[in-house]
Amino acid sequence: MNPSPPTNARLAAPAHLTAVPEAELRARAERFARRLRADGLDGAFLLHPSSAFWVTGTLSQGWTFVDADGRVWLPLRTSVGRAANESPWPVAAVTHPAELPAALTALGATVGDAIGLELDVVPAADVARLEKAFGLAFRDVSRAIRETRAVKSAYEIEWIERAGKLVSHAMDVTLPPHVKEGVREIDLNAFLEGEMRRAGHQGTLRVRRWNLEMHMGTISAGLSASYPCYFDGPDGLEGLYPAIQQGGGERRIERGVTVLVDFVGAMGGYLADRTRVVCVGEPASEARAAHEFCAEMLEAIVSRLRPGVAPSAIWDDVMALAGKSPFADRFMGFGENQVKFLGHGVGLDLDEFPVIARRFDAPLQPGHVLAVEPKVFLGAAGGVGIENTYVVTESEARNLTPGSEMIRVL
Amino acid sequence: MNPSPPTNARLAAPAHLTAVPEAELRARAERFARRLRADGLDGAFLLHPSSAFWVTGTLSQGWTFVDADGRVWLPLRTSVGRAANESPWPVAAVTHPAELPAALTALGATVGDAIGLELDVVPAADVARLEKAFGLAFRDVSRAIRETRAVKSAYEIEWIERAGKLVSHAMDVTLPPHVKEGVREIDLNAFLEGEMRRAGHQGTLRVRRWNLEMHMGTISAGLSASYPCYFDGPDGLEGLYPAIQQGGGERRIERGVTVLVDFVGAMGGYLADRTRVVCVGEPASEARAAHEFCAEMLEAIVSRLRPGVAPSAIWDDVMALAGKSPFADRFMGFGENQVKFLGHGVGLDLDEFPVIARRFDAPLQPGHVLAVEPKVFLGAAGGVGIENTYVVTESEARNLTPGSEMIRVL
Repeated sequence: MNPSPPTNARLAAPAHLTAVPEAELRARAERFARRLRADGLDGAFLLHPSSAFWVTGTLSQGWTFVDADGRVWLPLRTSVGRAANESPWPVAAVTHPAELPAALTALGATVGDAIGLELDVVPAADVARLEKAFGLAFRDVSRAIRETRAVKSAYEIEWIERAGKLVSHAMDVTLPPHVKEGVREIDLNAFLEGEMRRAGHQGTLRVRRWNLEMHMGTISAGLSASYPCYFDGPDGLEGLYPAIQQGGGERRIERGVTVLVDFVGAMGGYLADRTRVVCVGEPASEARAAHEFCAEMLEAIVSRLRPGVAPSAIWDDVMALAGKSPFADRFMGFGENQVKFLGHGVGLDLDEFPVIARRFDAPLQPGHVLAVEPKVFLGAAGGVGIENTYVVTESEARNLTPGSEMIRVL
Repeated sequence: MNPSPPTNARLAAPAHLTAVPEAELRARAERFARRLRADGLDGAFLLHPSSAFWVTGTLSQGWTFVDADGRVWLPLRTSVGRAANESPWPVAAVTHPAELPAALTALGATVGDAIGLELDVVPAADVARLEKAFGLAFRDVSRAIRETRAVKSAYEIEWIERAGKLVSHAMDVTLPPHVKEGVREIDLNAFLEGEMRRAGHQGTLRVRRWNLEMHMGTISAGLSASYPCYFDGPDGLEGLYPAIQQGGGERRIERGVTVLVDFVGAMGGYLADRTRVVCVGEPASEARAAHEFCAEMLEAIVSRLRPGVAPSAIWDDVMALAGKSPFADRFMGFGENQVKFLGHGVGLDLDEFPVIARRFDAPLQPGHVLAVEPKVFLGAAGGVGIENTYVVTESEARNLTPGSEMIRVL
């Protein structure tokens, strides 16, 4: 009745939690440190959850610090014991940013004067608090960390491929028998979510942009796929509520009207984005033609996913091709909701670098992973298109979400 | 084959999407404007998705602006047509912050010099971009908007109550028949998620803090409930992966070991947080005693949830009571993972004001909604405790998540 005080250090890590290998984490830190040195920085705090996990292998509330020699320290506010189980880097308990300079010194770190922070995501008030604690103005390492994380290791690609298998199986095998006339989007959404979760889907998807989120995926039937949705992607969706607009709504499956199935596999933190189209009965000829156009655009994009090619050049080339099509004005979004990209980087976040869009002029490299998603939105006739996640290799773009790309007629 | 160009204006709002009443939105804007005037501000941008939805009734990528007279304008980057369907305020299409001053003038707004921004959540780079566009330094309205939103209208309380019914039914009726020895946490989590989604759960939960997220809820069995989790709450959880740590893991239900069931109902944007305990067979006497202690703490807290009482005084009183218990050192978190609050505001976000914690000295008001969650973590014997969501009325704290609070023995 009065047991000895609890300490988390006593809690052994459960066997099922796969730790990121130490050599993998050291290689990541060294790669980011090289970038820090090239940018003339002494170190950086990685505060975004995905950035912190990427370099530590664990997740806590804290202030992960990487120096220009590739050493990493974890002054943490929570989960200190768990971090010690999951990460090879030194940890320490800290409750307030004001204690950070002393805590880092005690851990053996030298902070220096030229320190970076992810200013694209860290809130202004947190930046101000840290600047006060260290008496310096931070430099922005948003681009540095995003470009570094964009090149995936073999270990990361394995996880993305695992996530790809999960979402491909769910879409191609699990879902089709349940797509019937009169069924609501939300029923199919809920079913697919539950089945994927049981198979190891992590649930939460991370999106880097602070004011975006994504709930596992979306079934959009007919007109729903053309209805504006606040999420910054081509798919429309009515959704259940004006406050959420994601993850399916009340619209029911109709015969001859296409259903867009856009889901994200997610395991071990890593994401694989995939879209297929199903239809109860034969779709309208316009939908068939639009889907064929998307298949051509996919081929045009994927054939250009090679090391050395600039994503902005792919955008220019493929948009010029698409401009000649009768579907040009409903390509990549319906009406005003057209987006200005053809694909996006995928990894620990859904919105990684590189993006197939204007201004992404840095050439593709082996290890870049991109979701490519040519889609057309036809109003009441539904949405069509294909999305796969590819890894750029020395010689090709390898599909991590393979499987038939035809409209699946049920 | 070459249909007329699509315009989203042609897309009528589907009937199932319940719009927020215009009078409700006008009253909210007026209430926030009163606070702006009291703080000497001419207006504020509300950029957090929940803040923007709260005052507009819609959600888009854009820059919602409220002036000190309670007028609201929506210069938006996406979903302009949808916003026009869902919101009574004037909308305009804008693609870049640099266009904002001109766009707001064209809409009829006068921006003024003393402008607020939610500096607790808006990233530093976005603040810099907006400051450049307007040539001024923003003032922080984090506290102003959080305190204003903390007082819920009758309309909002109805939604929270609906979310409360959803989660209570799922926990008390849907789940128990499926809790069996040997079943994994993740299987129960997935099942409950799917059933709640089918019944109208919105899926996505919003958390205000930029680097936190929550996936619908968590089943934590036995030791799992004491294992550190990065989320800033008392519950531990091993989870499926170090990168995620939420939403159940591989641990299996054991006979005589308690299972903590902590889920969030969510409808129309609004959340209701609730926890119950289930156990296959008779729990250990220590767990029984700890749960009884939590029931006493709940009563101590709830009896103090009255207009005029300071949340910080509730914290002091109840922690003094708890300090006399043999469970004091495992109350509100196991070991180093103890949190420094007894309850938290709930509404469109999971982490709203007020918080039952130190420094929350502003007295409770009618319309405040709080999740109160006394819990004890016993290591291998499991986690116990109770969580309900209450609305403070003139005379009492009304429970929006009622139902038996005993350990449910199966």
